Amino acid sequence: MGKDVDQRLATIMAGLVKHLHQFAREVELTQSEWEYAIGFLTKTGQICSAERQEFILLSDTLGVSMLVDAINNRRPEGATENTVFGPFHVEGAPVRQMGEQICLDGKGESCLFTGRVIDLDGKPIEGAHIDVWSDNAEGYYDVQQPDIQPRWNNRGVFITGADGLYSFVGIKPVSYPIPDDGPVGKMLAHLGRHPYRPAHMHYMIRAKGFQKLVTHTFVGGDEYLTSDAVFGVKKTLIAPFVRVEGGETLWRSDFDFVLAPAENLAGG
Amino acid sequence: MGKDVDQRLATIMAGLVKHLHQFAREVELTQSEWEYAIGFLTKTGQICSAERQEFILLSDTLGVSMLVDAINNRRPEGATENTVFGPFHVEGAPVRQMGEQICLDGKGESCLFTGRVIDLDGKPIEGAHIDVWSDNAEGYYDVQQPDIQPRWNNRGVFITGADGLYSFVGIKPVSYPIPDDGPVGKMLAHLGRHPYRPAHMHYMIRAKGFQKLVTHTFVGGDEYLTSDAVFGVKKTLIAPFVRVEGGETLWRSDFDFVLAPAENLAGG
Repeated sequence: MGKDVDQRLATIMAGLVKHLHQFAREVELTQSEWEYAIGFLTKTGQICSAERQEFILLSDTLGVSMLVDAINNRRPEGATENTVFGPFHVEGAPVRQMGEQICLDGKGESCLFTGRVIDLDGKPIEGAHIDVWSDNAEGYYDVQQPDIQPRWNNRGVFITGADGLYSFVGIKPVSYPIPDDGPVGKMLAHLGRHPYRPAHMHYMIRAKGFQKLVTHTFVGGDEYLTSDAVFGVKKTLIAPFVRVEGGETLWRSDFDFVLAPAENLAGG
Repeated sequence: MGKDVDQRLATIMAGLVKHLHQFAREVELTQSEWEYAIGFLTKTGQICSAERQEFILLSDTLGVSMLVDAINNRRPEGATENTVFGPFHVEGAPVRQMGEQICLDGKGESCLFTGRVIDLDGKPIEGAHIDVWSDNAEGYYDVQQPDIQPRWNNRGVFITGADGLYSFVGIKPVSYPIPDDGPVGKMLAHLGRHPYRPAHMHYMIRAKGFQKLVTHTFVGGDEYLTSDAVFGVKKTLIAPFVRVEGGETLWRSDFDFVLAPAENLAGG
């Protein structure tokens, strides 16, 4: 490397080259395996488009995305843990009133999501923006089916009051496969891995003075909880989904989000 | 991973994931660095075409190609060493008579290349096919300039007789930059590295009963010998290029190629 190279870049490249070489030596990579890898990376790049990011999928399915998230989001004890952001968030979802419906296509089993946004001492946080999104009852996000689903289907932003309470009505999420018709899907098949993610509701919660929280709540009991294709599950994020008899919704899921103060920000 | 996974694939993927994760942890990769890497890999894939392989260039410039070559081509003491194949070989070059000219565009300083193809005991090898190729005096291979250079410019195949001798007339090769207008070129620039390869003549030598030899001879004294962008230089491959006074060519380069027997084949 040259003399005037950015110190951080030099560190990253030295580490990358060291581990790439150690990997090739350790497995004694053959010429034809190297050629296969070159072909795989090329196809992975070429299938990428404005609507599809196959390299993120690759990073997700190799557990790299979750690791980078863990490195950059060390949380104090008691704070709600992060998980992967995923490719389906859309900025600018409509702000809704507490208790409002986010499911616009009328499909699926209705569910009340409710709880509080609190700090490490259990005090309610006022003015927290809770951005939520999930797939529909058939396992697709609205952006995957722009011609079929209503815009902003199963999305919304809710802003807490002084009590820190939130509530909204959506559907009990369903598990779905990540896009598996490309190189990454082929890789999973070769590895005997399924492409499914366990059912989950996405949350991004932002409040002044607190670290941004990007997380999911997972549906307890989902068959893919222990084999999430992108390794996103953390035990603390598994939420109860209780069947309600004679209520306005078929299910109810209670979950409190505990935000860490902004001064505990580590690395991100 | 599943139960019925190919054992070799399982080994490779376990090694890859281990080193990818160790790398990310060691350098404490940030979220924005991860995003940059995803973007870099995507661009690298998308610039690939039938005429351009940017992932091979990436592998070359990170020293991975040379390492894979070394792992798969361990040679017994005394045999000529391998180096990178490169992207510019074309199968099917015309077979020429010993001593014939391969430079068809009349440019450059003429050079006689001569020597013997021998075995580890120094005995001549008969019927060895010597496939040679180099850039022209302006630093481009014919396939890079199909509209400018004659077809098969600076290429040819020579077949040894019982004496093992070879000779042909080409030009003294010149150093040239690898394609540096894409992501890899940008990476080299950020790293303060130039994109040049020291001047070299390519050889692929095949003979019955011997390991295929893919190598170059390098022009001694080239300013890039110690900083080859693809790390292809080995000391034993640096050849003399002697200026000839009043000869038919301006330069002469003598080099013997020592082939290893096929039974010593290790891994490739």
